[in-house]
Amino acid sequence: MAWNARIDQVAPFRVMSLLETAQAREAAGHDVIHLEVGEPDFPTPAPVVAAGQAALAAGHTRYTPAAGLPALREAIAGHYSHFGAEVDPRRILVTPGASGALLLASQLLAGPGDRVLMADPNYPCNRHFMALAGAEVDAVPVGPASGWQLDAGLIEAHWRDTTRLAMLATPSNPTGHMLDEAHLAAVAATVAARGGHLLVDEIYQGLCYDLAPLSVAAITADAFVVNSFSKYFGMTGWRLGWLLAPEVAVEPLTRLAQNVFLAAPTPAQHAALAAFTPECRELLEARRHELSRRRDALLAALAPLGLAPSLPPQGAFYLWLDISRYSDDSQAFCRRLLEEENVAITPGVDFALAGGEHHVRIAFTTGVARLEEAVARLARFLARQ
Amino acid sequence: MAWNARIDQVAPFRVMSLLETAQAREAAGHDVIHLEVGEPDFPTPAPVVAAGQAALAAGHTRYTPAAGLPALREAIAGHYSHFGAEVDPRRILVTPGASGALLLASQLLAGPGDRVLMADPNYPCNRHFMALAGAEVDAVPVGPASGWQLDAGLIEAHWRDTTRLAMLATPSNPTGHMLDEAHLAAVAATVAARGGHLLVDEIYQGLCYDLAPLSVAAITADAFVVNSFSKYFGMTGWRLGWLLAPEVAVEPLTRLAQNVFLAAPTPAQHAALAAFTPECRELLEARRHELSRRRDALLAALAPLGLAPSLPPQGAFYLWLDISRYSDDSQAFCRRLLEEENVAITPGVDFALAGGEHHVRIAFTTGVARLEEAVARLARFLARQ
Repeated sequence: MAWNARIDQVAPFRVMSLLETAQAREAAGHDVIHLEVGEPDFPTPAPVVAAGQAALAAGHTRYTPAAGLPALREAIAGHYSHFGAEVDPRRILVTPGASGALLLASQLLAGPGDRVLMADPNYPCNRHFMALAGAEVDAVPVGPASGWQLDAGLIEAHWRDTTRLAMLATPSNPTGHMLDEAHLAAVAATVAARGGHLLVDEIYQGLCYDLAPLSVAAITADAFVVNSFSKYFGMTGWRLGWLLAPEVAVEPLTRLAQNVFLAAPTPAQHAALAAFTPECRELLEARRHELSRRRDALLAALAPLGLAPSLPPQGAFYLWLDISRYSDDSQAFCRRLLEEENVAITPGVDFALAGGEHHVRIAFTTGVARLEEAVARLARFLARQ
Repeated sequence: MAWNARIDQVAPFRVMSLLETAQAREAAGHDVIHLEVGEPDFPTPAPVVAAGQAALAAGHTRYTPAAGLPALREAIAGHYSHFGAEVDPRRILVTPGASGALLLASQLLAGPGDRVLMADPNYPCNRHFMALAGAEVDAVPVGPASGWQLDAGLIEAHWRDTTRLAMLATPSNPTGHMLDEAHLAAVAATVAARGGHLLVDEIYQGLCYDLAPLSVAAITADAFVVNSFSKYFGMTGWRLGWLLAPEVAVEPLTRLAQNVFLAAPTPAQHAALAAFTPECRELLEARRHELSRRRDALLAALAPLGLAPSLPPQGAFYLWLDISRYSDDSQAFCRRLLEEENVAITPGVDFALAGGEHHVRIAFTTGVARLEEAVARLARFLARQ
């Protein structure tokens, strides 16, 4: 059978086969340390779980409106006050995960003949959503000079007549780096001056350790903003996210939502209403501090090995590490590290078209003791190279 | 701002604005009878709700594999024994609603330059998914002669060199009509002879009143089959469905799933495991009998008005009714019926490109007494025409 050609552009996640190997080793009795998947070891906050159970008990299991429960759209809009933005709830579309938001935005904004600017490295799904929409992605190699982000200068330099959209992610996966307010404003102005659209992935918003959390929504009402309950709010498996859109885009986006997913899961929407309470916020902020401690411990443990990121990650829960002193084949490096020392990390080729073969991503999704144990094993492994 | 041209091909659901009006009338104190939305008045079965609550209590809130929980894939595969099909669990991909399955299948099978055969009338999302994939839809007008379905003869007559895919829905929304085994086998053979793909929407499977429920999976392992926990299993708001695919398609579909939705909602997947118990099946079969009674009562009440479908619906919970004796503007007809008599039904233009203006869809999603009251109001309305 022959598939549509676009399928070839959707790369497999190498980390998934690595995860399978890791799980097989675990099943065989090995003590595997998982630093590969983008899911911290925190459970969903208890108040959110309780609200989900109460929703089920109350029979909230039918379709909601396509754009989401009105009360949840209001709560999400209100949440932007933390970032100094005033947001009309009508501009919020609740989606099945950030994936649903990316699907809506890519289908609305990008199509055949359009080019999309994106940083390289980047979360590969972002690239794939654009390919599925029929657009061409210009993946712009970034590094320490621009803080591992697309900045206004890079956007200016790479913009073409057919460029329709620039997409950023801040904090970024896999680097953890952020654009500060001044840089974000410069990007927004640059894109606006060219009559393009700006799409910002803020799914790690709130998980930041140096800068205060921020949103492009405080800078412009013209940006499309993807967000999620998965990361900061600890709700990965519930599959709930949102898209903040310019007012003029809400009608066509709602029409798309009615067709491509009908509505986000109802129990999850009711549960998420409890995510914005002061009680829950306190718990989530404690988790943020814990992630910050993990980041510091991981950086401190890696330093004696001569392994340090060019810039410490400011957010998310990832370290993007240059391993060129040891290897120029990140897939082989990660496979051997797993097989010889039972430490699972992700090869850079999953995220970067350029330079992925000498980078790895380490997710600090387990406690400090396990992270230090992982680095001790890594040291042993490197000593044998 | 300018959107991608494909957005214009996604028609708005007229029923949604009608629903808004209906809800506004309700809020203003009117007694509205809702026969417009495709969601019966049954709650999710208690054993499923209990399993969902237990899953939350046990902390099952993290990502599952992209293709779904292995135990659920096994349970779904086992379910096909009711239809005389033996299905390998590896061929099942669990998806966020049937919507997720339609997204996967359309992106895999249809692209720019491809033509897709479909019956008209049809569920509009099916057409829109193909448009988003960049394919052209040939909507073949069907009527009583072919049982309101695409049959082998129609497929032969409308197949072109660039046709890649034929899509059926049985039982069909909006007509409730089914293809029996012989017709389904003839369709599968015809599509196979042309080297095309066959996609069958079986989301109303199990909700049938004359024929025994059946699946194309019992006829061929080459068909792509979309299904859902929403309708027969009463789990609309949970957003859970599945795609049964030929074995060779599982790898690219899993790759797509990893990118476009990561995984289906975890609590819903655990809850759905309870949907296959004998206890739950007994309850669901009782609901099927109740829907059958509603269908019969609605048909009996409409007959004296000279309103009868060309064929009684064999499945789903819809009646597709020709109103040309009274109107050739189904939108105006439905709007006036709502405003004058507080009965909400759906204009045919939501489903049919041809003939939609003199058809309406009535969903028998409320009890017999309310259905009879709705028909009494309709009779009063028609007497004034």
